[in-house]
Amino acid sequence: MAQNIYDRPDFFAGYSQLERSVAGLSGAAEWPLLRPLLPAMAGLRVVDLGCGFGWFPRWARTQGAASVLGLDLSENMLARARAMTTDAGITYRRADLEQLDLPEAGFDLAYSALVLHYLPDIGPLLRTVRRALVPGGRFVFSVEHPVLTAPVRQGWTTDAEGRHAWPINGYLDEGVRTTDWLAPGVVKYHRTVATVLNTLIQNDFVIAAVEEYGATLEQVAARPEWARERERPLFLLVSAQAPRSDTNPA
Amino acid sequence: MAQNIYDRPDFFAGYSQLERSVAGLSGAAEWPLLRPLLPAMAGLRVVDLGCGFGWFPRWARTQGAASVLGLDLSENMLARARAMTTDAGITYRRADLEQLDLPEAGFDLAYSALVLHYLPDIGPLLRTVRRALVPGGRFVFSVEHPVLTAPVRQGWTTDAEGRHAWPINGYLDEGVRTTDWLAPGVVKYHRTVATVLNTLIQNDFVIAAVEEYGATLEQVAARPEWARERERPLFLLVSAQAPRSDTNPA
Repeated sequence: MAQNIYDRPDFFAGYSQLERSVAGLSGAAEWPLLRPLLPAMAGLRVVDLGCGFGWFPRWARTQGAASVLGLDLSENMLARARAMTTDAGITYRRADLEQLDLPEAGFDLAYSALVLHYLPDIGPLLRTVRRALVPGGRFVFSVEHPVLTAPVRQGWTTDAEGRHAWPINGYLDEGVRTTDWLAPGVVKYHRTVATVLNTLIQNDFVIAAVEEYGATLEQVAARPEWARERERPLFLLVSAQAPRSDTNPA
Repeated sequence: MAQNIYDRPDFFAGYSQLERSVAGLSGAAEWPLLRPLLPAMAGLRVVDLGCGFGWFPRWARTQGAASVLGLDLSENMLARARAMTTDAGITYRRADLEQLDLPEAGFDLAYSALVLHYLPDIGPLLRTVRRALVPGGRFVFSVEHPVLTAPVRQGWTTDAEGRHAWPINGYLDEGVRTTDWLAPGVVKYHRTVATVLNTLIQNDFVIAAVEEYGATLEQVAARPEWARERERPLFLLVSAQAPRSDTNPA
């Protein structure tokens, strides 16, 4: 089972105070880039892998989703998510994404925000998600960008002219990275961009769009202290699609 | 027209001495990762965009390619390529990839090695290449990795423990980068991974595989001084495919 960092009191306390935890999707800086990757939600059966406080399930329902299944490993997260809605169209369930079982062709959209970097291997989950999607269904997700996760010691430096720079090393050596984000000893897994995309392709997904989030010029204008968040990509966003027909054109 | 750096005597002299110029494909460190992206060559009509000294066209013919059209902007490169073969199945032609014209559905495979980063915009070329491919045809290419091209000032540094690191900045600001590789004032263009992949997708290519070349463990064992070439990706390699049928499944 992946490290259940969200149920550690120090981490949970810190996470609960993030803008994305308090304000929801509009408090997530990458949401303006992620939202256009999503299909029209009306009538869709949606699963949210790592739903946290349930901001996405609730938003999906306001957009007309037929139903949303929110999955999370953290009882703390699920308890708060359940307390924030009375919508019978939303179901929350505890699940370990490393041993996930989903009904075959039961969903039109799978969504996952900033969760996959906690998994040592994304292959089994992608296989499960692919089987759980109808033909033409989509998997839209964000993950910490490999440029962010690669360094053995993460941190900003400055170049010869005093400009912020993000030193990378260890890029080709995939595996565990331990960082002190919100709490000491948070375990994440570094994977290359190639591994993320090829694992999708090998599991019969078609890559529909790839985005790399860093602060937009508008965000920097509103918050000048975010300027360095354009120096390197922070999150990798992907829209992948199950082929529309099961007949293999090869 | 793109900067014709290969016809500048200082650059050409330096380039001519690179291992990849002297030994050909086997002297290109990324070839072991690029070759598996190529289809079986027997009977294929091939175009090489930026063929240089013609190492790839000659190799393609040894593998049974029906014909190879080698294109390059540099008269120096083409002259040497022509001098190195008498094979009537290979044609060399001077061409500016920014204003390329190719026969529609005239090729089974388009190939391009470390050339696209000289173009300010890859959209028009990808459109041309897509139209030049038969259904199911492939475009296999390498390009300097965006992690390599991003920094305003490229260069290695060391982290707090003395380990090599490659500081990145400017990643989200695409455009001109001037470096002093082989000669001063070499103009290349930085693009994000997302832009490379999305421009392919928007031009009706299907992403078949993505690789990120850095030194392999075997290469480091043979040449310990290459160890730092695993710290960050050096080249981005892509295999993209024209859909097999012109009927749009959407």
